Amino acid sequence: MERIAVFPGSFDPITLGHISIIRRALPLFDKIIISIGINSEKSSMFSLEQRLSWIRKIFIAEKKIEVTSYGGLTVDFCTERNANYILRGLRTSTDFEFERGIGQVNRKMASHIETVFFLTEPEHTPISSSIVRDVIKHGGDVSSMIPEEVEY
Amino acid sequence: MERIAVFPGSFDPITLGHISIIRRALPLFDKIIISIGINSEKSSMFSLEQRLSWIRKIFIAEKKIEVTSYGGLTVDFCTERNANYILRGLRTSTDFEFERGIGQVNRKMASHIETVFFLTEPEHTPISSSIVRDVIKHGGDVSSMIPEEVEY
Amino acid sequence: MERIAVFPGSFDPITLGHISIIRRALPLFDKIIISIGINSEKSSMFSLEQRLSWIRKIFIAEKKIEVTSYGGLTVDFCTERNANYILRGLRTSTDFEFERGIGQVNRKMASHIETVFFLTEPEHTPISSSIVRDVIKHGGDVSSMIPEEVEY
Amino acid sequence: MERIAVFPGSFDPITLGHISIIRRALPLFDKIIISIGINSEKSSMFSLEQRLSWIRKIFIAEKKIEVTSYGGLTVDFCTERNANYILRGLRTSTDFEFERGIGQVNRKMASHIETVFFLTEPEHTPISSSIVRDVIKHGGDVSSMIPEEVEY
Amino acid sequence: MERIAVFPGSFDPITLGHISIIRRALPLFDKIIISIGINSEKSSMFSLEQRLSWIRKIFIAEKKIEVTSYGGLTVDFCTERNANYILRGLRTSTDFEFERGIGQVNRKMASHIETVFFLTEPEHTPISSSIVRDVIKHGGDVSSMIPEEVEY
Amino acid sequence: MERIAVFPGSFDPITLGHISIIRRALPLFDKIIISIGINSEKSSMFSLEQRLSWIRKIFIAEKKIEVTSYGGLTVDFCTERNANYILRGLRTSTDFEFERGIGQVNRKMASHIETVFFLTEPEHTPISSSIVRDVIKHGGDVSSMIPEEVEY
Repeated sequence: MERIAVFPGSFDPITLGHISIIRRALPLFDKIIISIGINSEKSSMFSLEQRLSWIRKIFIAEKKIEVTSYGGLTVDFCTERNANYILRGLRTSTDFEFERGIGQVNRKMASHIETVFFLTEPEHTPISSSIVRDVIKHGGDVSSMIPEEVEY
Repeated sequence: MERIAVFPGSFDPITLGHISIIRRALPLFDKIIISIGINSEKSSMFSLEQRLSWIRKIFIAEKKIEVTSYGGLTVDFCTERNANYILRGLRTSTDFEFERGIGQVNRKMASHIETVFFLTEPEHTPISSSIVRDVIKHGGDVSSMIPEEVEY
Repeated sequence: MERIAVFPGSFDPITLGHISIIRRALPLFDKIIISIGINSEKSSMFSLEQRLSWIRKIFIAEKKIEVTSYGGLTVDFCTERNANYILRGLRTSTDFEFERGIGQVNRKMASHIETVFFLTEPEHTPISSSIVRDVIKHGGDVSSMIPEEVEY
Repeated sequence: MERIAVFPGSFDPITLGHISIIRRALPLFDKIIISIGINSEKSSMFSLEQRLSWIRKIFIAEKKIEVTSYGGLTVDFCTERNANYILRGLRTSTDFEFERGIGQVNRKMASHIETVFFLTEPEHTPISSSIVRDVIKHGGDVSSMIPEEVEY
Repeated sequence: MERIAVFPGSFDPITLGHISIIRRALPLFDKIIISIGINSEKSSMFSLEQRLSWIRKIFIAEKKIEVTSYGGLTVDFCTERNANYILRGLRTSTDFEFERGIGQVNRKMASHIETVFFLTEPEHTPISSSIVRDVIKHGGDVSSMIPEEVEY
Repeated sequence: MERIAVFPGSFDPITLGHISIIRRALPLFDKIIISIGINSEKSSMFSLEQRLSWIRKIFIAEKKIEVTSYGGLTVDFCTERNANYILRGLRTSTDFEFERGIGQVNRKMASHIETVFFLTEPEHTPISSSIVRDVIKHGGDVSSMIPEEVEY
């Protein structure tokens, strides 16, 4: 049976932290579907098309990676795509408590889907999409936090 | 002197976690007033009437439980109703730090009112009203997280 | 049915934080049994007799308080003494995670026994028996952390 | 070289907790610039003028304190003002994780600027500007949480 | 390339929480080596032979599981056994901070070895080997926390 | 008035994390006294002389740094040396809760002494003396965690 993982997120924008998690998890899976959750209530800084396009550019050479978007529940998308794993990175204990809640509720709804966590690299711990957006809004330089493919 | 507790919350909607806390705390008090705080700034998914009606239906047989709503400060409502205790459940350490701040500020304003905490059952730890609303919005099944009286 | 609580601990020595929790919880219960757990593996700074004697002196005027010691499991002692509640104070989130584990395991073993938590006063948050012992060992002054009845 | 610190914040309104941090940190620095970050997206309860005026009144006698506001990134404001230190208070571990992220990202952008943390006094731990605003909105008394100079 | 994981631990004794993690992680790996770290400084309640024998009995039917012990560093054992993954369960945020330190130091020493985390089931959150030992020492019943194969 | 800080610790052994904190804090103080607390109950891996000698070698060129040891309470040592500041690094939220307790108790005993915290660099977050000792005991390579002056 194929080991397929969904890496769900907003990726608004994708950061060096996300990329490190994906590259390090890649050997463990037969396929990783990086998938942007469409949330009608939360407004994003960058358009869905823009975000998809950056991620596709970054992983263009990776045959095992697919980049897409989805609406609805993450577990429903996983089921539809035959993915038994959700991939997530963990930075801080605040992160952990949030992810634990989501992960355990996902298993209540679909007990065959497991969330698999990788640790961020220490130097990526302070980097999050929301802090990147905040720095951008105030005119700061985020080149040490995002890949060069993210041009805005 | 009667031991009266107020269990304040949004209950948007009430979950199996809330119900477990209330039933387990009931023998300790002479009366528990489940009371929905009316917060003009925070919009709710379900109407106040709807939320009150569900809670009343669940506890219809419990003579020691009253279900109502209130505006203003929780400690003022407690004083008005002669309640010396605020009842709260604790799920996670993030919960705890939030509740500790509220509880200690409540005592600064009304030193005779104590917050009394019960632990959630382990299986209810991931369940919160906000996660229930999120699953509902995405069309998921929340029947393992809320009581059957909550029909929407 | 009487509301009896056991407040278990090492009380090596009892601090102002413990006393505040006990006094504030007293109106909620018909009886509080302050009980020193005898742990053959953990060595204490002060003898069991000394610790019991200090606590008895502090609460000599409180008819609803009993002071004693016990071996074995806390839940077995509670059952023997007809106590349905374990009383504990919460200072920090590290405390909370520790207490949650103990409290949930206690309910696994004796589902009718609930742990009831009160918050420490903000000014007592940094005070613990272990920090008091540490200051004593280094020759410091602990008079702002313990009651005057604790004479050593 | 002068030791200049910026104490950035919203101060909406300034609390007794902020004041304690500033007064205790004052001997360590040659100058502390209390500076209100102007955030066009976040609406405040009190106007910028009002907030500045309260802080100026409180510290009118302190020659080493300057009160001002700034737009843009905190590190850019620090550079402009020759300040090598950002001063912050720490209340809880949730605070800490948030501040660590900001502080480490600030060093990524400007490695010569260090964030220096002081601990809040235990009795100020539950006090935050957001809890003060919440109590004010519900008609409560905040006189034990803010200085008398904050008149509204 | 084979996906081999080492699940290191003391397993003193193995709990229902450990077993759940292993069974749920099994489909993701080609082999899981459950391996008891031999720590000359830490004394165990049960002998190494006893602990190995219990684990072997539990997983006797699983072809993909091997049960063994090791001395020295976990990463050295992984390298020797061609394992690129260390498997660990996460229960609480205290757990998380501890595991993050170990996991990131392991990567400093052997950058090709990744720690992969699974979440414990909510009902297993309060269960740990140390709490099991503590209940056993006090004469309590641990049958809801350990597998029936663990007979002592 | 001189700004003198004591950086207390066991430094068993000193790590790259400690060194980074000291170097970054140096411009803020007129003198930093790195001081090894002598704790008769805690056994160390390296002798006091060895630890002092490594630290002296590392900072031999720094005129503002003094290296010494002390018995008794840290605040008493500070008073004796006219130091109004205790310098500490913060890595994790577990660290923070521990340090907050110590720091607030120190102020209870000596209200003129403030603890000043610096953040560790992200890449030093997983490094602690205890993890270094653990790796050494198991025969691992700690050269990425300690300075070259630490030869053992």
